[in-house]
Amino acid sequence: MTRITATYDLESPIGVAAAAAVVAGEQSTGTFTRLAAETDALRARSAARIEDIVITGTSPTPALPTRKTGTSYERGRVTLSWSLDNFGTSLPVLMSTLAGNLFELAELSAIRLIDMQLPGAFATAHPGPQFGAQGTRDLMGGHTGPLIGTIIKPSVGLGPDETAALVATLVDAGIDFIKDDELQANGPHCPFAERVAAVSAVLNAHADKTGKKVIYAFNVTDEIDQMWRNLDLLQAHGGTCAMVCVSAVGLSGLRALRDRSPMAIHGHRAGWGIYSRSPDIGISFGVMQKLWRLAGADHLHVNGLANKFTETDAVIAQSARSVQQPVCASGPAHLAMPVYSSGQTVWQVDPARRLLNNDDFIFCAGGGILSHPFGASAGVMALRQAAQAARDGIDIRAFARQHPELEAAINTFPEPDIAVTQGQNRAS
Amino acid sequence: MTRITATYDLESPIGVAAAAAVVAGEQSTGTFTRLAAETDALRARSAARIEDIVITGTSPTPALPTRKTGTSYERGRVTLSWSLDNFGTSLPVLMSTLAGNLFELAELSAIRLIDMQLPGAFATAHPGPQFGAQGTRDLMGGHTGPLIGTIIKPSVGLGPDETAALVATLVDAGIDFIKDDELQANGPHCPFAERVAAVSAVLNAHADKTGKKVIYAFNVTDEIDQMWRNLDLLQAHGGTCAMVCVSAVGLSGLRALRDRSPMAIHGHRAGWGIYSRSPDIGISFGVMQKLWRLAGADHLHVNGLANKFTETDAVIAQSARSVQQPVCASGPAHLAMPVYSSGQTVWQVDPARRLLNNDDFIFCAGGGILSHPFGASAGVMALRQAAQAARDGIDIRAFARQHPELEAAINTFPEPDIAVTQGQNRAS
Repeated sequence: MTRITATYDLESPIGVAAAAAVVAGEQSTGTFTRLAAETDALRARSAARIEDIVITGTSPTPALPTRKTGTSYERGRVTLSWSLDNFGTSLPVLMSTLAGNLFELAELSAIRLIDMQLPGAFATAHPGPQFGAQGTRDLMGGHTGPLIGTIIKPSVGLGPDETAALVATLVDAGIDFIKDDELQANGPHCPFAERVAAVSAVLNAHADKTGKKVIYAFNVTDEIDQMWRNLDLLQAHGGTCAMVCVSAVGLSGLRALRDRSPMAIHGHRAGWGIYSRSPDIGISFGVMQKLWRLAGADHLHVNGLANKFTETDAVIAQSARSVQQPVCASGPAHLAMPVYSSGQTVWQVDPARRLLNNDDFIFCAGGGILSHPFGASAGVMALRQAAQAARDGIDIRAFARQHPELEAAINTFPEPDIAVTQGQNRAS
Repeated sequence: MTRITATYDLESPIGVAAAAAVVAGEQSTGTFTRLAAETDALRARSAARIEDIVITGTSPTPALPTRKTGTSYERGRVTLSWSLDNFGTSLPVLMSTLAGNLFELAELSAIRLIDMQLPGAFATAHPGPQFGAQGTRDLMGGHTGPLIGTIIKPSVGLGPDETAALVATLVDAGIDFIKDDELQANGPHCPFAERVAAVSAVLNAHADKTGKKVIYAFNVTDEIDQMWRNLDLLQAHGGTCAMVCVSAVGLSGLRALRDRSPMAIHGHRAGWGIYSRSPDIGISFGVMQKLWRLAGADHLHVNGLANKFTETDAVIAQSARSVQQPVCASGPAHLAMPVYSSGQTVWQVDPARRLLNNDDFIFCAGGGILSHPFGASAGVMALRQAAQAARDGIDIRAFARQHPELEAAINTFPEPDIAVTQGQNRAS
């Protein structure tokens, strides 16, 4: 495989086939009038090719406002391909090509990038995750099972000492993973350096006592130079994980972080709704997660089953599986860990595991831990018991009869409605 | 002004006022259950405030798919504010807050960020454009009137020598500004270093002969380290302008470029449709251009009047004006130059100037220059004559009677339908 392919769901007033030709032209050799310099030889080597067209329906009205109108709007799925020689393996230029001006074309009344297949040259050219699941476990001093995690709340407003006090409670409760909220970075109320010092003292004392290094994903999101200084500071305090809002710093920002990071990179998707909310415009997570993994994210948020946001369980399942599948057609697989989060309790642990068929995930709960009737420690224990039941294939209610913390949790948190199928990923 | 304000158009199954409270909570102190640590004092200092709510309508169906449903969906405009102390002046964290998780909330069936007002602290904390309009003219060795520009086409496929040959034709034709296509960066067919060497030789020879340094915006878009190497190479060849796809490299990537750039930064919006196409999800240009200017863009694309894409002339006018207005409530104004592009001919020059009330813009035409019946040189001359007529307030048809190049142009290119009003920006 030496070509890059992209698949789009689109709608057009001029028909899907004609629209596909416009997109292929706009995103390769074309301009709106054919120029003398656009020779047949140049087109043969550089033009994007239409690989496949499937018509899926028509509508009397356009999905999005558009300058060009028609009597009807045909909908379909189109696959295009580009030569690797058009732009090499540069991720930003890949983005500008597959997800560039085409989103504004008047010939399209809907356009969504839903799949992208890359040749192995991308997997070889980019560093990918430095740690992945096994490396993340190693950073903790070893670990089995999913990582049970939580997020510091309130999202913003706690000072460094208040944060450290909450962290002390959480590590005593047996937590594996803690993260800053994406709203908390380096604000005047909770400066990064002071938060790192206060929290690291707690984490390091706990590691000295127990041998377990709890992972804290400090939000390093900032300008490039400042992110690098943040990494230096974290390293000086024995930090093992840097969280970054991947959309806020951009693809090149993520890669710059990866290039100098001695620690795991925890990728947060704040702003993801812009790409995901509309069925008529945007980019699927299946596409974006490949770019973020190639650029170096070790962990990627995928929302949670039965979450408080809008993505469906089918999308969550597809997202979580996608980060555990090879990133390119060949070359290093560059697998990342999916991070479940948002309204998660013991009820979601088994389905979250089942759709992956392994334990290589991070499971974040907030109220699901802190609101346990026996306290935070029992909250963590209940989640670990749920993970044990899931791994052993035992029904959560049956397992709860021998495990009082789990039993209290299932009696406290309402059971959500979830339907996911067994995963095809490798077993752990 | 010490608070940051953001205005959203939104739609909700729970009503606009209730939805506004959810957004304010999610993007500041809240979580979905109120925690003990979320004290009144903490809320007072860190909670986002609802400043204004205007109800604009209701719909029986949701604009976007959403997990929460209702019997009707209320639509409205909501203004929220945040304390500067929540996150300081960090642009990526500003993005994660104003345009973060809120886009995914189940309580919203539409959400679009349409305005953002920043305190002067942002204008002081960030470098802003290094050159702006006057600096750009200085880089050319002096210039009056709008910059007449063009884009190398075909978009991708020409080699370095073919590109340089086209540049030679264009500089001989009297062009002021040339840019790479956003698809052309550092691909195997046209490596950046070879293109820079070949093109710069033409530009420098022309400058030696005429004293006029034509600006060529070389597309430096790439990973951070490579962009910095690209700047070094450009500087060694006397380059005066670096083009970057702002969405592809991200906000932190743009700022990293600005911090090391000895030359003007030309901001291209490839992918802009993701933010702009839907009335139900996204971010307005008025918001994004402030972030891009603070991070250092000297020039920003705004599309063109009567363009081949989908933005309306009213949006183009608003976009072009916005980059010439102060970026914050106080502090340095950080003005940038708007770049008009896409299907532009002599007909759009006067309206493009009229909506700004000054000449501080770049006007890019492709076919509008190369398809002039007397050749490229007459094409450039016709555009300059159109700019002269616009500045002097003379009707283009009347002026054309004394200027054969302009006359040929208005007889060749069909007159588009454009309606824009006189601008309120300062006169030049």
